Amino acid sequence: MVTRTVDLRSDTVTKPTEAMRTAMANAEVDDDVLSHDPTARRLETEMARITGKEAALFVPSGTMGNLICVLTHCPIRGSEVILGDSCHIHIYENGGISTIGGVHPRTVKNNEDGTMDINQMEAAIRDPRFEICYPTTRLICLENSHAHSGGRCLSPEYIDQVGELAKKYGLKLHIDGARIFNASVALGVPVDRLVQAADSVSICLSKGLGAPVGTVIVGSETFIARARILRKTLGGGMRQVGVLCAAALIALQENVGKLEGDHKKAKTLAVGLNKIKGLNVDIDSVETNIVYCDILKSVNITETKLCKILEGHGILILPEGPFRIRMVLHHQISESDVHYTLSCMQQAVNGVHGKQDGK
Amino acid sequence: MVTRTVDLRSDTVTKPTEAMRTAMANAEVDDDVLSHDPTARRLETEMARITGKEAALFVPSGTMGNLICVLTHCPIRGSEVILGDSCHIHIYENGGISTIGGVHPRTVKNNEDGTMDINQMEAAIRDPRFEICYPTTRLICLENSHAHSGGRCLSPEYIDQVGELAKKYGLKLHIDGARIFNASVALGVPVDRLVQAADSVSICLSKGLGAPVGTVIVGSETFIARARILRKTLGGGMRQVGVLCAAALIALQENVGKLEGDHKKAKTLAVGLNKIKGLNVDIDSVETNIVYCDILKSVNITETKLCKILEGHGILILPEGPFRIRMVLHHQISESDVHYTLSCMQQAVNGVHGKQDGK
Amino acid sequence: MVTRTVDLRSDTVTKPTEAMRTAMANAEVDDDVLSHDPTARRLETEMARITGKEAALFVPSGTMGNLICVLTHCPIRGSEVILGDSCHIHIYENGGISTIGGVHPRTVKNNEDGTMDINQMEAAIRDPRFEICYPTTRLICLENSHAHSGGRCLSPEYIDQVGELAKKYGLKLHIDGARIFNASVALGVPVDRLVQAADSVSICLSKGLGAPVGTVIVGSETFIARARILRKTLGGGMRQVGVLCAAALIALQENVGKLEGDHKKAKTLAVGLNKIKGLNVDIDSVETNIVYCDILKSVNITETKLCKILEGHGILILPEGPFRIRMVLHHQISESDVHYTLSCMQQAVNGVHGKQDGK
Amino acid sequence: MVTRTVDLRSDTVTKPTEAMRTAMANAEVDDDVLSHDPTARRLETEMARITGKEAALFVPSGTMGNLICVLTHCPIRGSEVILGDSCHIHIYENGGISTIGGVHPRTVKNNEDGTMDINQMEAAIRDPRFEICYPTTRLICLENSHAHSGGRCLSPEYIDQVGELAKKYGLKLHIDGARIFNASVALGVPVDRLVQAADSVSICLSKGLGAPVGTVIVGSETFIARARILRKTLGGGMRQVGVLCAAALIALQENVGKLEGDHKKAKTLAVGLNKIKGLNVDIDSVETNIVYCDILKSVNITETKLCKILEGHGILILPEGPFRIRMVLHHQISESDVHYTLSCMQQAVNGVHGKQDGK
Repeated sequence: MVTRTVDLRSDTVTKPTEAMRTAMANAEVDDDVLSHDPTARRLETEMARITGKEAALFVPSGTMGNLICVLTHCPIRGSEVILGDSCHIHIYENGGISTIGGVHPRTVKNNEDGTMDINQMEAAIRDPRFEICYPTTRLICLENSHAHSGGRCLSPEYIDQVGELAKKYGLKLHIDGARIFNASVALGVPVDRLVQAADSVSICLSKGLGAPVGTVIVGSETFIARARILRKTLGGGMRQVGVLCAAALIALQENVGKLEGDHKKAKTLAVGLNKIKGLNVDIDSVETNIVYCDILKSVNITETKLCKILEGHGILILPEGPFRIRMVLHHQISESDVHYTLSCMQQAVNGVHGKQDGK
Repeated sequence: MVTRTVDLRSDTVTKPTEAMRTAMANAEVDDDVLSHDPTARRLETEMARITGKEAALFVPSGTMGNLICVLTHCPIRGSEVILGDSCHIHIYENGGISTIGGVHPRTVKNNEDGTMDINQMEAAIRDPRFEICYPTTRLICLENSHAHSGGRCLSPEYIDQVGELAKKYGLKLHIDGARIFNASVALGVPVDRLVQAADSVSICLSKGLGAPVGTVIVGSETFIARARILRKTLGGGMRQVGVLCAAALIALQENVGKLEGDHKKAKTLAVGLNKIKGLNVDIDSVETNIVYCDILKSVNITETKLCKILEGHGILILPEGPFRIRMVLHHQISESDVHYTLSCMQQAVNGVHGKQDGK
Repeated sequence: MVTRTVDLRSDTVTKPTEAMRTAMANAEVDDDVLSHDPTARRLETEMARITGKEAALFVPSGTMGNLICVLTHCPIRGSEVILGDSCHIHIYENGGISTIGGVHPRTVKNNEDGTMDINQMEAAIRDPRFEICYPTTRLICLENSHAHSGGRCLSPEYIDQVGELAKKYGLKLHIDGARIFNASVALGVPVDRLVQAADSVSICLSKGLGAPVGTVIVGSETFIARARILRKTLGGGMRQVGVLCAAALIALQENVGKLEGDHKKAKTLAVGLNKIKGLNVDIDSVETNIVYCDILKSVNITETKLCKILEGHGILILPEGPFRIRMVLHHQISESDVHYTLSCMQQAVNGVHGKQDGK
Repeated sequence: MVTRTVDLRSDTVTKPTEAMRTAMANAEVDDDVLSHDPTARRLETEMARITGKEAALFVPSGTMGNLICVLTHCPIRGSEVILGDSCHIHIYENGGISTIGGVHPRTVKNNEDGTMDINQMEAAIRDPRFEICYPTTRLICLENSHAHSGGRCLSPEYIDQVGELAKKYGLKLHIDGARIFNASVALGVPVDRLVQAADSVSICLSKGLGAPVGTVIVGSETFIARARILRKTLGGGMRQVGVLCAAALIALQENVGKLEGDHKKAKTLAVGLNKIKGLNVDIDSVETNIVYCDILKSVNITETKLCKILEGHGILILPEGPFRIRMVLHHQISESDVHYTLSCMQQAVNGVHGKQDGK
């Protein structure tokens, strides 16, 4: 019987801490649709400060955060957005920017490090002289850290370059900063510097930071005023939302400091997995808290099967695709959990090898 | 200096009770996007039971509840929905069903009691033989209690008739039951009987029931499975959402029983206001917790001015339109608050009268 | 065996005249997408002149004309349009403004004469102070002549009043002038005066004017430039479109002068039908070329059956609804056709009466 | 003074021939919205026969043809389509499938020959197990001949492979066959064989075939019935459309046989241009009637400038992008026009070289 659970499916799985629970219980609240909930206001003010932007808005999820930002930057029918072909908005958000928002996506290949080639981006910007058959480019989206490239970080220099490009063509720049704190910690660059060139940023508080629910988007006063209306349209306007914001404020205090540890544990895990015969991890790509691991053909096991075996040991991992699994570290995974995982993984892979050998 | 606050703007303004706060602090939670949060599951199971439907889904707001239901019933491009011309979905939800969902609304006049004429509804259903130039009617929406008619209730007999009509033409029936518990208590009819004919219902927990945040939608298993995907698309999928659901479960226990008192206080307020010279309330229309009050021309004061004066006494009321104000009762308004309100209102109206007389 | 055909289904059924056919055969043309087809340019210039507007655009149909105008006036997500509850855009154009364009319609009751009450229209305009839950009103649509009210005409004074209202609130005014020439002739008021207050007008050339295909929309230079792009998006950009425009130019020369005759024939038909026992026509409502006729209960015959019988005599009529039929006059219906129709109708109704009496 | 015009901007610029003009003048017509225009019916029947499909529908443009096909295959909110990153639908049709239709595009890289890698396509198909965050793949689009790759042709074997892939995953296959007749002639494969695996095809009659206006889409009876409704919604339903269809029928008779000549002229032009010092054409890529020509850096001239110079000689050419021009051959370009073009081009490039040398 398994008693231990090591949940590596995502950094969204963290449970609220005692301090968060207490904060929720004691939160000062008001109707955030009719008025402005005081705790939401505190959180929004704090996030605006951290990011160096004028204003902020609490929304129920990262998906809504990105959706609102893209749609607010693209209010006019016939808009196009340039974004990475493996970015979260394009791949994991139900195609909502088109299917709900009528915005046309134009993708540029994401490099292994999560960047897109600046020249390719420039080439993708629509020439307004051909507006008779072109949509109008209005927005560029970046993602930092970039989940699908293993949580790798975009440097401030790169982001500034993209910002310059956007400015040159009168475009807006949105950063999906679901894990921007991870990027900030890994790069040793403050968040406000990282998002300096951005017109909007969407920052998740329920991933590495461990809040139970919520994302905050930041931008100019005007931007946030329009975003607030769209939040209502989409159904993201919540009443005494201060209870959630109170927990998020604690998350900012408690957990930013723990991200460095998460990254270290990710590295430990990556190095350990890579040592297991039959597994492969690109250790250099592990810059933050995400570890992608390939199962080599020599191990005769599918990713689904491997995840199943580990589940039997209380270790939860999501398959990522054919012969690939993904693990995400967070503050409720201990060093000991990492070693337990490595040991179970070794056993699982060996077991299979063993059986094979036994044939 | 005002020390007392009587917030009559809406029943959405209630603050969470101690029991709710404790429940939030102790809530058992999980990632409701990757898995199913256990407290969300408990709430959803309970709401399915109460409404006699197969399944339920927690969403962040009433607006999202209605939006998801309408769009889930109308998944195909070219859909039309029949709904009341003063209903909440049509008037107060940003036109989201069209502007976000591409659904075409066809309105039928709401009678003073919130019903629509059955014959007019039948006439509004599109004849599929003319599909070459007609959209396709797919859904009828009712609202119970009907806010804009003063919170009046639709009887089960009426709803059944509409249900028959829907069935006859192969349409779905959605009930915006934001205040269905108020209707249930006022009519003395259980909720499951009231929504028997409906394919979906959206029920608000943060209005009269006093939960800090949230609405639950109910329907068939299939319907809710599709609604869950749309919730994700819109950005309503939340992680450890159990903290909100825990409060909502308490709301169901604590506050359904208090609704009858809210209705009594509304009646007291209505009768009292009607006695004030210069004000008029249709007392018969006050079936639940909403009171509309007209300012007669003899009182030389706009609704905005009157609300301003009362705000000086700590009484918060929303203007509804020209010479009309709206007050909504809830469990955090006491009998004494009602009498205080009446007394301040008398003074405010007299004051104006007085000044006039003095001319 | 029937040799005569009297097609009263619509004024869209006319066949091109010899002059139109010759004009099509000789039309000077160019690629109207890459350049500007010279004959299209001539037609557009002429229509701009007739309507007193800066610019014009040829489109394939009245439905596209209205769709482009509404969407061009409402380019921003979250727009609402005020229009009559029985107008063509709302009832007969597939709900395209919502289902394709994401625009939210807000209807006001059409009076019997096709007008809407000005006060009701004003009340329907959204107060921007409540933008948090309201869509934004951007446009008012009128229809002149108003088909569903029997082709009745809106007076220039009425339209000016609506124009004033629109201006007061910063809204645009679109006129669905599919049959504006009929209105102009019936009222004895030039088209440019009739549309003076309008920001855009959609005018059909393939209805009473008898061109084989096409509608022209007019408005400011800026408006038409944006409309041209939307025409391309919708797929209405055609190449050597001058062949159609050549026919339309002939239609303007040949057939405007014949509309008065169409109206007279409509009156003759209306008076004649009204004399037939068992039929009823509101003769005063027949201001232009449309005749609605009610079948009284004394005649035991459905509209579908009646149309079927007349089809046996080569007379084509569309049923309009329960016990109601619609006939539309045009330049290819002669006085003699009208009398033939009356005689067949008398026979058809008598036949039924006769059978009844014989029972 | 220039008297000669050589219009190489596109094969859409052809003027109707005498036979087409006569056919338009004599066309038998009817109201194609209320009934079925007999000439439209003849054309649609003929196109269904040629393509081996059940039914066909005439639409005003290639853009509408593709838009209707994509939207008819993707009627449900949340649909995704897989298509080439340089295909016409994605690049040149205003993003209409998203901005008008709410369909999410997922691009796969187009190879130089217009194909997409089958494995990449398969990888792009969404796994329905992750429907919680994925849109639903419903359609694959191919383009044959593929304009952006220089009019290169997809082989029947390749298309069949894609058809197999589509079938395996329950997807539909649409072919943008704007120039499918060019592909058919170049490959020596009948059109019906080329589109055998497709559920729908959009075929332009006003490109190489020289009809003044129009595209025909083909598919199953059910598909075309639904497409007809969408055509009406978009405003593509035209009345006496037989006048256009009559010309298109002549185009089919007269001009299919001329396409081989167009291809030869394209080859002659390509070979000639390639011999001019400073220009470069990939001669192998010229399989049909499109010629892309690169201006080498040694020639100090932009594409815009070069086009301007040639315009002075009556030669119309569109710039394609930085240092790239595009020429399209058609039946109204003679051998002599080709040689005239080559000679003017030589002069233009030399002139620049000359000036450079003279410095």
